[in-house]
Amino acid sequence: MKSGLAVGVDLGGTTVKAGLVSSEGMIVSSAKLPTLAAEGPDAVIGQIEKAVRHLLGSTREQVLGVGIGTPGVVSYDGVVKYPPNLPGWTEVHLGEVLSKRIGLPVAVENDANAAAIAESRFGSGKGELNFLSVVWGTGVGGGIILGGKIYRGPFGGAGEIGHTTIKYDGPVCNCGNRGCVEAFVGQRYLSQRAIERVENDPKSKILELVNGDFNRVEPAVLSAAAEAGDPVARDLLVEAGTLLGVAFASGLNLLDLRLVVMGGGVSAAPEFVYDAIRSSVRERVLTPLKPGVRVVRAALGNEAGILGAAALILDPSVSPSGLK
Amino acid sequence: MKSGLAVGVDLGGTTVKAGLVSSEGMIVSSAKLPTLAAEGPDAVIGQIEKAVRHLLGSTREQVLGVGIGTPGVVSYDGVVKYPPNLPGWTEVHLGEVLSKRIGLPVAVENDANAAAIAESRFGSGKGELNFLSVVWGTGVGGGIILGGKIYRGPFGGAGEIGHTTIKYDGPVCNCGNRGCVEAFVGQRYLSQRAIERVENDPKSKILELVNGDFNRVEPAVLSAAAEAGDPVARDLLVEAGTLLGVAFASGLNLLDLRLVVMGGGVSAAPEFVYDAIRSSVRERVLTPLKPGVRVVRAALGNEAGILGAAALILDPSVSPSGLK
Repeated sequence: MKSGLAVGVDLGGTTVKAGLVSSEGMIVSSAKLPTLAAEGPDAVIGQIEKAVRHLLGSTREQVLGVGIGTPGVVSYDGVVKYPPNLPGWTEVHLGEVLSKRIGLPVAVENDANAAAIAESRFGSGKGELNFLSVVWGTGVGGGIILGGKIYRGPFGGAGEIGHTTIKYDGPVCNCGNRGCVEAFVGQRYLSQRAIERVENDPKSKILELVNGDFNRVEPAVLSAAAEAGDPVARDLLVEAGTLLGVAFASGLNLLDLRLVVMGGGVSAAPEFVYDAIRSSVRERVLTPLKPGVRVVRAALGNEAGILGAAALILDPSVSPSGLK
Repeated sequence: MKSGLAVGVDLGGTTVKAGLVSSEGMIVSSAKLPTLAAEGPDAVIGQIEKAVRHLLGSTREQVLGVGIGTPGVVSYDGVVKYPPNLPGWTEVHLGEVLSKRIGLPVAVENDANAAAIAESRFGSGKGELNFLSVVWGTGVGGGIILGGKIYRGPFGGAGEIGHTTIKYDGPVCNCGNRGCVEAFVGQRYLSQRAIERVENDPKSKILELVNGDFNRVEPAVLSAAAEAGDPVARDLLVEAGTLLGVAFASGLNLLDLRLVVMGGGVSAAPEFVYDAIRSSVRERVLTPLKPGVRVVRAALGNEAGILGAAALILDPSVSPSGLK
């Protein structure tokens, strides 16, 4: 890890979050702006630039560079390809463009990979050389840390644990395939299944918590209902955890890994959900993996994106992604 | 690749096959002995030694070393752990023991990994830096080539594509999990499903080919029946190919790979089975993978084990496995 500061940028479909990060993983100042995704790539890059310039302020000479975590596949030369939720982005040379504008090195990485890197350097994966990082939220994202580095795959697209088929004749996934684990436990699918289970149940705690408004049913509501003793919410979350465990077991078997670090919005789930994942994984992995396999909570919450992006600069060895 | 010769040993549950291999991948002489598995590790190691000594013969000074492909997980220090089909093998320091006896360097690798290495250096994967190698036979074995080297995983157990769950509530697999792809298409399971389909069908070509003897129903029979126009055999093989494709797609998504090289006993299947795998994989992989994804036939057949084992010596860069 280099000593000095780096700006980490977490580029999302609605918000650009940025932070000035020390080599100890401390966010010393931060900024948040709307992404303006609907206005296309130029507007979005302008927002990123604005956030970065704000953070550079008077400390510019201590800043080593800017890291960005972005949706979409990021090629080895830093091109962001077809990111979901960013209209008009086909292939954008984000690193190159931004580096020219602000005169600092810029590194770009996929957001799920950035989260994996953050947990590897500053979070629950610190000191672990090999693990699967999972971001459970709208979808199920993943990043693979091997030998202390992010495994990007030959084209920069690796880590897609959410698109592991767990039931070949299962429901259609957003990606077009059938039976991906994401099509069972992604936020929208999970909420939909909850609604199907409770729409005719006037005593449901879930409906009580959202005042009968189906649009407000989301995993955080299920967690709250489950903790208040609602059996349907608990069942759904245990089922979701069990199914996540199915996909994790396949991935751990293939890669011979023993650790899953799970974060993301939905992962602020009660401990019994983690326990359901753990039971499912232990039951399903191959015998040599059973004794050592662990599923732990990610440590960095919403800040993982910023911290992982900054780590691209502070510890360039973590990713073979191109610096521009 | 070093110039010189190496002995490659393919250690199986019933036969030890060994060959003297040149750096061009030519087997210049070979030997075959019974494994004597039932007599335990010492007897088996004795058989390996006998085969190796026979091949060393008068050319010993040109021989760089001995590579062995073995069932079971092989640790980084060359210990073979709990190989299936080799009774009495708990943890055997195969490399160390054999090296002391014959006075040459010995490298040990898992047999599915050896097959992957063989295809990478001498077969259908030659010139390819990244691919998934699959051995479809009794089970469904796998090996992962990344950056031109075998990916062994932190504990030497990587590549288990056969234990990808494709249906979480599917049939129980030999490994204890439910719904592994191996539990659908492994030789025994496939034969069993064939028997269930034809036992009451007096017109079945499958039954005709085995003279009504259910014990002789095996994938090669299904292939022959399918090529002779039997619709049940064809259906079963297309279904098996489709299901293999489900698991391959999950693995390719996770690792961002574009190529599968498939060999093994059952893989001598007619081209329509490969076509079924290809359709299934293309339909199921994520969009960025679709244009480039390929499934090709392995080139080396039964010799892959010997050639991959020899390659451990001829090109040590292919595997970080310990030389003893």
